[in-house]
Amino acid sequence: ESGATLQTRYLLNGALPAQDVASLLESSPPKERKLLWELIEDKNQGEVLQYLNEDIRLQFLENMSTQRVVAVSEHFESDDLADLLQHLPDKVVSEVLLSMPPQDRLRVEALLSYSEDSAGGLMNTDTITIRPNITLDRVFRYLRQYKKIPDMTDNLLVVSRSNRLLGTLPLAKLLICDTKTTVRDIMETDHTAIHSDTSVSEVAQVFEKMDLVSAPVIDRSTGKLLGRITIDDVVDVIRDEAEHSMLSMAGLDDDEDTFSPIMKTTRRRAVWLGINLITAFIASYVIGLFQHTLNQVVALAVLMPIVASMGGIAGSQVLTLVIRGIALDQIGSANMRWLLNRELIVGLLNGLLWSTVIAILTAVWFDNIKIAYIIAGATIINLLIAALTGTLLPIFLKKLGIDPALAASVILTTVTDVVGFLAFLGLATIFLV
Amino acid sequence: ESGATLQTRYLLNGALPAQDVASLLESSPPKERKLLWELIEDKNQGEVLQYLNEDIRLQFLENMSTQRVVAVSEHFESDDLADLLQHLPDKVVSEVLLSMPPQDRLRVEALLSYSEDSAGGLMNTDTITIRPNITLDRVFRYLRQYKKIPDMTDNLLVVSRSNRLLGTLPLAKLLICDTKTTVRDIMETDHTAIHSDTSVSEVAQVFEKMDLVSAPVIDRSTGKLLGRITIDDVVDVIRDEAEHSMLSMAGLDDDEDTFSPIMKTTRRRAVWLGINLITAFIASYVIGLFQHTLNQVVALAVLMPIVASMGGIAGSQVLTLVIRGIALDQIGSANMRWLLNRELIVGLLNGLLWSTVIAILTAVWFDNIKIAYIIAGATIINLLIAALTGTLLPIFLKKLGIDPALAASVILTTVTDVVGFLAFLGLATIFLV
Repeated sequence: ESGATLQTRYLLNGALPAQDVASLLESSPPKERKLLWELIEDKNQGEVLQYLNEDIRLQFLENMSTQRVVAVSEHFESDDLADLLQHLPDKVVSEVLLSMPPQDRLRVEALLSYSEDSAGGLMNTDTITIRPNITLDRVFRYLRQYKKIPDMTDNLLVVSRSNRLLGTLPLAKLLICDTKTTVRDIMETDHTAIHSDTSVSEVAQVFEKMDLVSAPVIDRSTGKLLGRITIDDVVDVIRDEAEHSMLSMAGLDDDEDTFSPIMKTTRRRAVWLGINLITAFIASYVIGLFQHTLNQVVALAVLMPIVASMGGIAGSQVLTLVIRGIALDQIGSANMRWLLNRELIVGLLNGLLWSTVIAILTAVWFDNIKIAYIIAGATIINLLIAALTGTLLPIFLKKLGIDPALAASVILTTVTDVVGFLAFLGLATIFLV
Repeated sequence: ESGATLQTRYLLNGALPAQDVASLLESSPPKERKLLWELIEDKNQGEVLQYLNEDIRLQFLENMSTQRVVAVSEHFESDDLADLLQHLPDKVVSEVLLSMPPQDRLRVEALLSYSEDSAGGLMNTDTITIRPNITLDRVFRYLRQYKKIPDMTDNLLVVSRSNRLLGTLPLAKLLICDTKTTVRDIMETDHTAIHSDTSVSEVAQVFEKMDLVSAPVIDRSTGKLLGRITIDDVVDVIRDEAEHSMLSMAGLDDDEDTFSPIMKTTRRRAVWLGINLITAFIASYVIGLFQHTLNQVVALAVLMPIVASMGGIAGSQVLTLVIRGIALDQIGSANMRWLLNRELIVGLLNGLLWSTVIAILTAVWFDNIKIAYIIAGATIINLLIAALTGTLLPIFLKKLGIDPALAASVILTTVTDVVGFLAFLGLATIFLV
């Protein structure tokens, strides 16, 4: 074994924190990633796995024996383990569950019953619960029995005998109050409790708005305590959501691994290119309708991409803004009309401004005042259509249950291309030929 | 006063939490926003202001008398106040500072000396510090003197007599250890301390990687404790950063308010449209070079947008992926060559696939096998150039200190348009005319 390998092995097995090893794997091309992974000792792999992004984690797990999966699963918290098991074959899942202590197994099985996109799927079961009628003194004594208080514990959860959530006792309050008082006297009852069927994106909004570190999760009908959600898991949701729009608008997958292998990348990208090819041929078809006109005035062919391109740019600005507004839950029927109005006026004003510039440049270039008028008119029309489409399309898709970030940009481009060519060549056919 | 107004006034002044009032204002068009704001009583405005996004908060503050600004500033934590003051006129700033108790003033003045984009600008000064040689018993007694422990306190900070940070004492540990032990015995010395000049994006990465709730900030040279950063402020950074790429790629401003007024919106958008108009004219100029060819074969005019569009789509996929990779700090000299290679091969494979499809459709449509060959060749060339530009351009811009999210998409479109038209019309001129 070479000195370099020895040193790498040393770095990967303890010298670097597991989080850094995970980042290193994520920034490595597939072959190097595999080599590095093999240098990590079995006993350290579990900890590194838990920090890897889901796509890559799954790749490694799929290549492990069931026995190894069982071994590394010890390192995971119950919520992470449940997430993981959802993607593994049933046979492996049951082996892992069988290997666990009965209490942990029940916990993970319960978590497996929630959807990954709900608060239930995001929650953990490591709550510390207390009863309302005890004194703070007893709370202190109770806590001292713990070997370790779970990370991100900022509240103790106060529950009834039947495990209904009654309130929370923030550690910050526990530490400053008289130890003779009872929990009931100082517990907070205006705490934020999350229902297990709440969507993760709503959970993220609540955490952001209320500046929470953790929040209890309860059953909607019984009010019983099920677990808690912590900010570290919510941060992942926030990052994923914010990235989702950007990646989807380019037709990329959410958990797209920057260094995924060639064939996988080719296949994923091919689909998007194919869809866009259809829109390109639709635009070409529209141009094809005006071959006769183009044959007579070749300047039209030279200028026509300008109209389409200005519409596309203006439309995608509106689209991006509206998609973000929808994601932040800012846009509803109350303000939609105002928004549409503003976008149409902004489109008109920018249309007037830039179509004047385009007209002057065209008149000078081709020494033809008629074409200048025609391209100016077409540009204004296309900017108005872009504003209309950019505002209403994502709202409409959202209502249909279609992800606007994914579908809207393709449709918008088709619209602005088609309208751009149609308006410009159409006006030219009427007034020029 | 009508019943509806009365009810609104009731909702805005206490019935709704300040966070919800802030969301409501953010989702309202300018006129409604102003009306709602005026219904909020003076004494409640400060709390609402603190939850508003920066852009809108500033608008309200700019219209307030200095005296009112002084009054509402009482509601802000020192870090938020420092951020705010950075955007206000010097005269107002000095009035606000003068109105504060001397100790608070010193604190805010110190914060004002840090850049908004550094850990110093993000930190707060509400730390709880203890000395290493005292027993936990004394720590408990010391904490009980607090009326309120600052939000998001998960660690007590252990400092030397000269205020150098020696370690941290997690509350979770304080609560389970024997009260006779001293702080020094159980404090953690492998805590994550952040230097005041660290960039906010690095701070966010550290918080995400280490799953932190709060982290102490120290001076790089002296090791002295300056303050602490809490996860709620980091969450804002994470959301802003993730949104930044998406908004910038469409030429939108970071703190773009979804409901900003017409003239402001028109002005901001106009600049982006103007820049894109230049690139559109460059593309047109290239087409103009081939007027003679277009005059002879009008089918070329019909088909040419396809080549440019496929290049643009393929390029923006690569670009989006690389921009995200750069933002996540995943791309460096070690893996750049691998990435470029992959993108070129993916571009070639998708080029071969889709150019075949395009060639067949073209051959059928125009009954001309020569044009089919030409458009296929041009498409492959453009997809390769798109892969090259999409990968290298953002890395290159980043090295020059230019924000790739803002500049790269315009440049990329110019390249794929120009190359698309040049390759297609150029090949046609050579082989067809």
